[in-house]
Amino acid sequence: MIDYQAVLKKHKPTEAQNSELKAIAQSIIDKTEEVVKRLSVKAKVLLVGSVAKGTNLASGDLDIFVVFSKDYRTREMEELGLKIGHEVIPDGSEKYAEHPYVSGYVGERKIDIVPCFELTPKSRIISSVDRTPLHTEFVLKKLGDAGKDEVRLLKLFMKTTGVYGSEIKVSGFSGYVCELLIIKFGSMLKVVEEFSRARGPLRLALNGEDTDLEKYDSPVVIIDPTDITRNAAAAISEENYSRMKINCRMFLKTPHAGYFTDDRSYSPELFRERGTAVRIFLLERPEIIDDILFSQAARFRGILVQILKEQGFEPINSEVELSEKIEVLVECKTDRIAGTRVHMGPPVDAQNAMDFISKWMGNSLLGPYVCGNRLCTDIAVENRDLESVVREDLKKFSIGKNIDHLKEGLEIVDPISNKQKYLVTGKFYRKELRE
Amino acid sequence: MIDYQAVLKKHKPTEAQNSELKAIAQSIIDKTEEVVKRLSVKAKVLLVGSVAKGTNLASGDLDIFVVFSKDYRTREMEELGLKIGHEVIPDGSEKYAEHPYVSGYVGERKIDIVPCFELTPKSRIISSVDRTPLHTEFVLKKLGDAGKDEVRLLKLFMKTTGVYGSEIKVSGFSGYVCELLIIKFGSMLKVVEEFSRARGPLRLALNGEDTDLEKYDSPVVIIDPTDITRNAAAAISEENYSRMKINCRMFLKTPHAGYFTDDRSYSPELFRERGTAVRIFLLERPEIIDDILFSQAARFRGILVQILKEQGFEPINSEVELSEKIEVLVECKTDRIAGTRVHMGPPVDAQNAMDFISKWMGNSLLGPYVCGNRLCTDIAVENRDLESVVREDLKKFSIGKNIDHLKEGLEIVDPISNKQKYLVTGKFYRKELRE
Repeated sequence: MIDYQAVLKKHKPTEAQNSELKAIAQSIIDKTEEVVKRLSVKAKVLLVGSVAKGTNLASGDLDIFVVFSKDYRTREMEELGLKIGHEVIPDGSEKYAEHPYVSGYVGERKIDIVPCFELTPKSRIISSVDRTPLHTEFVLKKLGDAGKDEVRLLKLFMKTTGVYGSEIKVSGFSGYVCELLIIKFGSMLKVVEEFSRARGPLRLALNGEDTDLEKYDSPVVIIDPTDITRNAAAAISEENYSRMKINCRMFLKTPHAGYFTDDRSYSPELFRERGTAVRIFLLERPEIIDDILFSQAARFRGILVQILKEQGFEPINSEVELSEKIEVLVECKTDRIAGTRVHMGPPVDAQNAMDFISKWMGNSLLGPYVCGNRLCTDIAVENRDLESVVREDLKKFSIGKNIDHLKEGLEIVDPISNKQKYLVTGKFYRKELRE
Repeated sequence: MIDYQAVLKKHKPTEAQNSELKAIAQSIIDKTEEVVKRLSVKAKVLLVGSVAKGTNLASGDLDIFVVFSKDYRTREMEELGLKIGHEVIPDGSEKYAEHPYVSGYVGERKIDIVPCFELTPKSRIISSVDRTPLHTEFVLKKLGDAGKDEVRLLKLFMKTTGVYGSEIKVSGFSGYVCELLIIKFGSMLKVVEEFSRARGPLRLALNGEDTDLEKYDSPVVIIDPTDITRNAAAAISEENYSRMKINCRMFLKTPHAGYFTDDRSYSPELFRERGTAVRIFLLERPEIIDDILFSQAARFRGILVQILKEQGFEPINSEVELSEKIEVLVECKTDRIAGTRVHMGPPVDAQNAMDFISKWMGNSLLGPYVCGNRLCTDIAVENRDLESVVREDLKKFSIGKNIDHLKEGLEIVDPISNKQKYLVTGKFYRKELRE
């Protein structure tokens, strides 16, 4: 039997932590309201997110929303939002989601001051951020105290299995989706049972909302009760849905506390026994928001894999992660390709057969020669080393608007000889299912 | 300009050699006729082949046919044929073509005593060997003295370009086909011009014989004038026909004496610069005729290439040759494969998903894990070395009736470290077209 109270004790904020959190939240709210008043802005200040809903883990952020009257134009709202944010958190930095906002720290606690428009359940959508206050309201109304801890357990389960987070980098389950699942099924265990039984896509409406569930083609569809035209689970990738399903089945077969705390640790030394060529490609990280950066980093990974595949290094695994750097790991079957490539030429009967011979005669390791009804020739491969092939071929590609200029600074690391730790190495190993 | 007289002087038998050859032939014929008479066999003794036709090169064999009356049954003819052969060449050995025959040496000159049935142009075919005397008769009638030297030049051209010989090992042009081509077109150069212009298959009838040339699907069709139902060029493979066409075009573009004497030499050291893994696989040679042995050796090559391909060594070239051993050369991109193989499992929704996990959990280098909507796992490759993989996997295959029992004695040689010369190495390099 798993001692869920022990699990919660480890990850749930203590009374003292919660009091401190509330005090910080209240002081930020007071400060924000003061600025709003001073600038004569028509806006309400709201604590939203997991702290507001009481479903936060010990490590949770504080999300303060400045909810503007719809009298403002978007541009005006955004400018005022930033102005307010900077006044409240003087050393905060600007970030860009659907609206720009200011993010900073009070002690170790991350705080976001996010402007949005006031929205009623029936009103026209301006942006999905504007809906956040409605989510907070809905969850506060529907989720009891017991439910809040179940949400925490579900989040922990999803964190350890790598599917928690709706940002593009993760493409998994958001906190709001966790809350909706607990509201729908009642407990973490019931949710896990539900996923363990699921085959194919999952389609849920909380209260039998009058909507056509079949019109969505996302792997998971959960109708947002605050806007029945929206799939609250649209961010979830097929891989993460698959991962959730199989982890739920495995947990029910052999339940243990390891599903709520990821205490596995890996040494890059483990790469040695794989008998492959692993390289970590590092780029400097530009100052743009994760969602945009991650898309470009993913494209960079795709290009690296494509180059290595085309040149015969046979990539078999790859991962991408963001830390202070962009980290891409690619594992290949070899880091040195053969010195000879067989180049297939035209059929001997083709018009250009003699041209092919003139071109390669004296420029081949062997050939041209006849193979079947065609000409072939064995060409010397000059660039046989993984790292120099990548550096050379990468010149031909644009890897993304915001990172292309960073290619020159590309660092290539062999994790077997370089003992530094990289986030992407952990990601590589953590995809492994739990025993 | 090529000095064809010089070429011929080098390869054509001298007057003295021809006198000696004729003396040997006559003494063998006399001896054979004496045995035939003594045994009261109803048979004529005939000198056939290139010596009889005056188209022989200095190195040519002597072919003596014992042409039996059709009163004999096949078995009887074959038994008597061997008896006669052994009496004529006491230390000769038995060989098996369409009929068994005796082969041996007088000095350095190879002599075959071949029994066959008498055949008239209109008679029913018993075996194609039986037609040889008719070929000799036809060529002697149609080919003038000038033509004989043209045949020699054509044979030399084909020898150096690797397409001469109708045995399965070569699958090229027979001496008889060379003679028919000279009878048809008049000279070596005219034949070369003909092939240089050819595109697609070549179909020839010498005297506009009344036959449907289109019914054959061999790359080269030359109707046998002694039997218009037969394609005298059926042995020629598409590769050799292609090789002949392209060599003829290259010769006409840059004619030089190198097309009549193969004076290229290669050192196994050349393998070093290829940056690949080359191995020569050697089997003892059993006492069976080349045509049967070669088919099995070719199958052995195919199996080696298949094993090496399936196991990821990426074979890029291979050759097979017969010497005192069966020699197979395979060139691979690597002689050591990666230590990890990604094993794709079932979709997570499949019935056997949990079985896959149970099977591989703890038996994988990493995994099982989820990739897309499937399960995968990274398996350790235990046997990574080319030579030991071949020895292991070869156990699963039967490589041929007459050579399967020789697998145990398989020798594997790396031509870079082993300086011995192998015929197959020469074959590997000689496929290269001439400059």
